[in-house]
Amino acid sequence: MKMENPTPIQWQFSQRAQKLESSVIREILKVTVRPEVISFAGGLPSPATFPVERMRAAFDSVLSREGKVALQYGPSDGYAPLREWIANSLSADGAKIVPEQVLMVSGSQQGLDLLAKVLIDEGSKVLVETPSYLGALQAFSVYQPEFVSVPTDEHGLLPDQVADIGQGARLLYALPNFQNPTGRTLPVERRVALVETCARLGLPLIEDDPYGALSYRGEPLPKMIGMNPNGVIYMGSFSKVLTPGIRLGYVVAPLPLVRKLEQAKQAADLHTAQLTQMVVHEVVKDGFLAEHIPTIRKLYADQCAAMQAALTEYFPSSVTWTKPEGGMFIWVTLPKHIDSMKLLDEAIAQNVAFVPGAPFYANAPQQNTLRLSFVTVPPEKIREGIAKLGKLIAAKI
Amino acid sequence: MKMENPTPIQWQFSQRAQKLESSVIREILKVTVRPEVISFAGGLPSPATFPVERMRAAFDSVLSREGKVALQYGPSDGYAPLREWIANSLSADGAKIVPEQVLMVSGSQQGLDLLAKVLIDEGSKVLVETPSYLGALQAFSVYQPEFVSVPTDEHGLLPDQVADIGQGARLLYALPNFQNPTGRTLPVERRVALVETCARLGLPLIEDDPYGALSYRGEPLPKMIGMNPNGVIYMGSFSKVLTPGIRLGYVVAPLPLVRKLEQAKQAADLHTAQLTQMVVHEVVKDGFLAEHIPTIRKLYADQCAAMQAALTEYFPSSVTWTKPEGGMFIWVTLPKHIDSMKLLDEAIAQNVAFVPGAPFYANAPQQNTLRLSFVTVPPEKIREGIAKLGKLIAAKI
Repeated sequence: MKMENPTPIQWQFSQRAQKLESSVIREILKVTVRPEVISFAGGLPSPATFPVERMRAAFDSVLSREGKVALQYGPSDGYAPLREWIANSLSADGAKIVPEQVLMVSGSQQGLDLLAKVLIDEGSKVLVETPSYLGALQAFSVYQPEFVSVPTDEHGLLPDQVADIGQGARLLYALPNFQNPTGRTLPVERRVALVETCARLGLPLIEDDPYGALSYRGEPLPKMIGMNPNGVIYMGSFSKVLTPGIRLGYVVAPLPLVRKLEQAKQAADLHTAQLTQMVVHEVVKDGFLAEHIPTIRKLYADQCAAMQAALTEYFPSSVTWTKPEGGMFIWVTLPKHIDSMKLLDEAIAQNVAFVPGAPFYANAPQQNTLRLSFVTVPPEKIREGIAKLGKLIAAKI
Repeated sequence: MKMENPTPIQWQFSQRAQKLESSVIREILKVTVRPEVISFAGGLPSPATFPVERMRAAFDSVLSREGKVALQYGPSDGYAPLREWIANSLSADGAKIVPEQVLMVSGSQQGLDLLAKVLIDEGSKVLVETPSYLGALQAFSVYQPEFVSVPTDEHGLLPDQVADIGQGARLLYALPNFQNPTGRTLPVERRVALVETCARLGLPLIEDDPYGALSYRGEPLPKMIGMNPNGVIYMGSFSKVLTPGIRLGYVVAPLPLVRKLEQAKQAADLHTAQLTQMVVHEVVKDGFLAEHIPTIRKLYADQCAAMQAALTEYFPSSVTWTKPEGGMFIWVTLPKHIDSMKLLDEAIAQNVAFVPGAPFYANAPQQNTLRLSFVTVPPEKIREGIAKLGKLIAAKI
């Protein structure tokens, strides 16, 4: 019944699809799965931190106890007990958050897509940090905004620059804790100033916080949503504190926005897996994260220290890098004339990988930057990889 | 640190978001969760068919054996062994499908969203059946197409009407087996004619097939993708043959399109849960569906027969309805002057629910139609509910 020689289709993609590209990082990751490659390129958490047995027991218990409910369609806004747990955790931190403000999503990347879908028209002005999280730039790009890069210094974005350029913008996207890609943390006084400036402009402020719990020392800084729950949209994730492969995150937003997001969620994929949400609730409801997260912090702090030591030992003195106090990334700035994209080719030839910095810039990329992740590489391999990279860089100076 | 009296935000939503509405069905479902309501409104499969123990054992075994891999980030296109399994199953049915053509998605609703995202611009012409699946209309609407309804008769859409109205359209969306909402099945000769017409026009044909396996008797009809694998986009789902709460479906498309869909998938939510895909592969790889699906068919066939008998007994002779040979739905046409939306209010007051037909029409809704699902209601309740509905209708004639 097969047709003989049908005319092949001339695919006509939508304008937004014509601009879609595969993530540079995902392309690099494909190269770096070879076991001999020392990869600082990943954005993956360390599998050593995954509480596999705890998750297995929770799947077992939820399916044994409430299998038919867990495997049926569920509500678009999410599993009510988990939304309540999230609202309570965030309320402990500042202003009162109600469960109705919480929308469960299939990983916080979906939160970014839904926010862009309901807030961005073609040509809308969207403010991002310099540099910013690549996944956010990708999610937003689909809806064809005009990106405006907010200037930053070594402590992150400069709130006093927002007043000028933020007029009429649709949103400002910030990642205040241990930012991806720079590892920088926005100081408290800048958080206050940023929240106030955005409130004055009527500008929705997105606070993306996947790494906030991964502070190496001391208490986390106050969240911006606590300063103005009616103006800040908070995004959280279970990917870095539990496991990423289950795809579970959440958006906490003012009520008029969260209802619109829920409608968009319904059209996009009906709802996030009920079973996954019930299992995560089972895992976190009795305080498991309070005992589990310190073990992640300790591992990442040690490997970060190992990389800092290796960078000091092996990198030429004209290279600078950030000293993150949490999270998963270090950002390196090379002398101006060195293009990290070209450096990557040489590095891969020597079985070392990293992510070039350029794709993290919405405008005017700085070619002499790169991102290093230390969380999936053991200390002795960190030394070996950084030593090789240092030699390659030194040869260019 | 909370701001005193910040100015509330005047939310400015994107144009597409201003048109978003909550699904009528999901709103009705909220009313019908009261246990005393006999609901024919759901599109939910019967939880009696969920292989809970089998799923529990598979989660247990995958997490015990490969927990760290299952819980890590995975590839955007999906878990390779499951994609291969899908490609093989479809190849058995007709032309050769390769695993590279398969994109795993978070339920086939996401497949609809991604297809619309990469194929539809504002104002693009999109062809749908009369009536069509509501979830597809919703997913497509977000991208603001111009819908054109293809005329249908009691056997489904009329391929000879497509040549005229399909010129320059971006896609034709069809649900050929036991259609939602009508229960109709497109005959073989119409499938052939439709595939040929679309090929001649260079028009991508979407074959959405969530219910295809749920035939009550005989072999399923040949799939359209087998007739022209370079022109047909096939959508499948594990929701109706396994369980919907895990959110797992797939899109099988010609290579240039599937690569574009994969990029859109990456921007939308990175990838579908690796664990879920590994578990489903574990469940299906040794032929479980071949023993499981007949039990679903039997249950649904019996309940469909019970509803047909009740309709014959209790509905006035001026009412007509479809006689599906598989799937989950019966479509009822009332005398022209009866508005099913108004009938619903009266029915709910008597603790019976259904879905009015109007929302399933992209254009020119027929207010005198309604959809009945029989799969989650036991036979004696089917009789009771249909008797009540019949009385309400009879009172209007």
